[in-house]
Amino acid sequence: MSEQPVIPVPGSATSPTQAPAHKAQLDQLRERIDSIDKQLVELLAQRRQVIQQVTEVKQQHELPTFHPAREENLISARRAQATQAGLDPDYVEDLFRTMLRHSRVGQLDTLGRRGVRPGAKVLVVGGRGQMGRFFATWFRQSDYDVRVLDRDDWANVSSLAQGADLCMLAVPIDLTAAVAEQIAPHLPPTCVLTDITSLKGKPLEAMLHSHPGPVVGLHPLFGPATNTMDKQIVAVTPGRNMEQCQWVLDQLTVWGNVLVETPAAEHDEIMGIVQALRHFATFAFGQFLHSRSVPILRTLDLSSPIYRLELAMVGRLFAQDPELYAEIIFATPERLSLLKDYIQSLQQNLSLVERGDKKEFVARFSKVAEWFGPFSEQAMRESTFLVDKLVHRF
Amino acid sequence: MSEQPVIPVPGSATSPTQAPAHKAQLDQLRERIDSIDKQLVELLAQRRQVIQQVTEVKQQHELPTFHPAREENLISARRAQATQAGLDPDYVEDLFRTMLRHSRVGQLDTLGRRGVRPGAKVLVVGGRGQMGRFFATWFRQSDYDVRVLDRDDWANVSSLAQGADLCMLAVPIDLTAAVAEQIAPHLPPTCVLTDITSLKGKPLEAMLHSHPGPVVGLHPLFGPATNTMDKQIVAVTPGRNMEQCQWVLDQLTVWGNVLVETPAAEHDEIMGIVQALRHFATFAFGQFLHSRSVPILRTLDLSSPIYRLELAMVGRLFAQDPELYAEIIFATPERLSLLKDYIQSLQQNLSLVERGDKKEFVARFSKVAEWFGPFSEQAMRESTFLVDKLVHRF
Repeated sequence: MSEQPVIPVPGSATSPTQAPAHKAQLDQLRERIDSIDKQLVELLAQRRQVIQQVTEVKQQHELPTFHPAREENLISARRAQATQAGLDPDYVEDLFRTMLRHSRVGQLDTLGRRGVRPGAKVLVVGGRGQMGRFFATWFRQSDYDVRVLDRDDWANVSSLAQGADLCMLAVPIDLTAAVAEQIAPHLPPTCVLTDITSLKGKPLEAMLHSHPGPVVGLHPLFGPATNTMDKQIVAVTPGRNMEQCQWVLDQLTVWGNVLVETPAAEHDEIMGIVQALRHFATFAFGQFLHSRSVPILRTLDLSSPIYRLELAMVGRLFAQDPELYAEIIFATPERLSLLKDYIQSLQQNLSLVERGDKKEFVARFSKVAEWFGPFSEQAMRESTFLVDKLVHRF
Repeated sequence: MSEQPVIPVPGSATSPTQAPAHKAQLDQLRERIDSIDKQLVELLAQRRQVIQQVTEVKQQHELPTFHPAREENLISARRAQATQAGLDPDYVEDLFRTMLRHSRVGQLDTLGRRGVRPGAKVLVVGGRGQMGRFFATWFRQSDYDVRVLDRDDWANVSSLAQGADLCMLAVPIDLTAAVAEQIAPHLPPTCVLTDITSLKGKPLEAMLHSHPGPVVGLHPLFGPATNTMDKQIVAVTPGRNMEQCQWVLDQLTVWGNVLVETPAAEHDEIMGIVQALRHFATFAFGQFLHSRSVPILRTLDLSSPIYRLELAMVGRLFAQDPELYAEIIFATPERLSLLKDYIQSLQQNLSLVERGDKKEFVARFSKVAEWFGPFSEQAMRESTFLVDKLVHRF
């Protein structure tokens, strides 16, 4: 985003006070900095080579990529060294976290492709949609025998489903139940049936009802644009015969995902807030800015980084697929009633402003602050860290 | 924020497949990594020493801290070297941006204290409030002669105001106009009069009306918790005799601030959206979560990083001063009508959901997306960068 300092900076780089003598002195110091920086990059390249050797050893012996304790020890040692050398340990930690993350992703690129059950037959229903294609690619890279069934392939359903070890439904929310019933009779009874929709109650019920074998509901909390699954969250709603589903969960873990188990009812209630309500509110805010023709870029010139962050999150929504958001917002009658309640609560808060009742506003604010408790402080630290990144990156 | 993977990771660190031979091999490689890391920190410490020498030279000759072109050249050279060495240039750039930022802040710590007009008399009215204290401290560190006038000091107003070169009003919005009128008769006619409230129309009018000398409105877009002014934005609303106000603006620039000029009307309109509306919406969302007793921490376990970021921004609000937010939201009748319009537009969007009119939702969405234009893509990139930071930091 653009910053437009309209008032000139005093003492620009070409200031007449800069005599040649100081210039030579500065040039010399800058050369030293350049030489140090060059050595830094050389060391980074060396580091990468050693990491690659580590990856090879791990690959040969099927060892895990991740070693949280090792990472923390490494960080502690560098922090201690930094403090001794008079450097800010937080600064050094920040650099090393970036480096560790980079090498972890590099290792996942290699190790993450490992198939937990290579050669197993995976049928992706809706495999030409965005998420379907995404999973089909990942399974293929991990040496699974991947077949795709989309709208026009139902004529071949028997041969496609034959001998399937996993059937993954990657179709829109409102079709998931119907497709589950349609595909189930063609699956072997030992096949794992799963779906990846953002609602879990009805799809899971339909899968359990139509398929007698192992069933598990999945909700990957990321979009198809992701190119790493490192630390991405997948909600897991157990269905039936979970021990037979375990290899599928293991595969997700090998890819780098973090799995969080949740009953369907809890999942759907939380997603009402986390997805439907937030997406609706964000959509409505963007729509409001549009309806008033608010000069977006100018508001950014005049904004604190927090607003820039908020606006980036509004803009982000509109760079994505409207159908997907419609699906999520329009999914259930419970979601409609949640949105109604929300707008009603806004109305109630507005009436405070109408009455000019600052005292009650402050009272409500304090009550909520107390309820948020230590999370507020954590949120403050976390968002400050990010704002810092934002200010100094762009 | 906490992640709770409830399903075990396959092949844990103590896996029985890990034979001593591989362990020795891994240990050796890890020792090499540790040695490289140690050298990295040594180079960082060397770098810091050279930077300190640069700072000293700059200080002796009053040269500017910042040299954007130098930074960009440095980054380009390291990117090129990275590419040649088979490293990801974005990764190397990320590390160097962190390093440059750190050294810039380090230099500002030393150079930023330089007074543009050391010894000048600065009167901070409301100087015992948070922002007043903040500015008093910065002026003092830059060798100004700082005096503070707060509620109980009006008996001494004549002596405090005598010979003032700058009078800064740091009092609540609703008092600014009245305090301007009260203090103005005691100021020398050459004194620069300024305020730092988040509204500019009325305060500026009152200052221009009561003081015949130089007047400029300021709105620092940051809170008193900031410990660096590096790249922080200050909105500047010109009043009268701007050439006589220039040294004050120069001082802000030396401290690291970025100044953005804006007429009072534009400023106040944009702040209605950027501050009043956003703060109200954020407050109301937090209040809604509270009223439904939504299990915050559990929603975080089950969330995409984007929601975590959004929730962090809600939590952040409630870690701050309710009076300040009340002041901003309740400031003007225009703001009330803005909030009303906003809720009305939410209601209209809700009726789409009530009617189940997905088609119209998608149509509106696409219209807004078009209006946002390239900003959406930028927002996507920017927020993805941050989400990445968030995922891998916490």
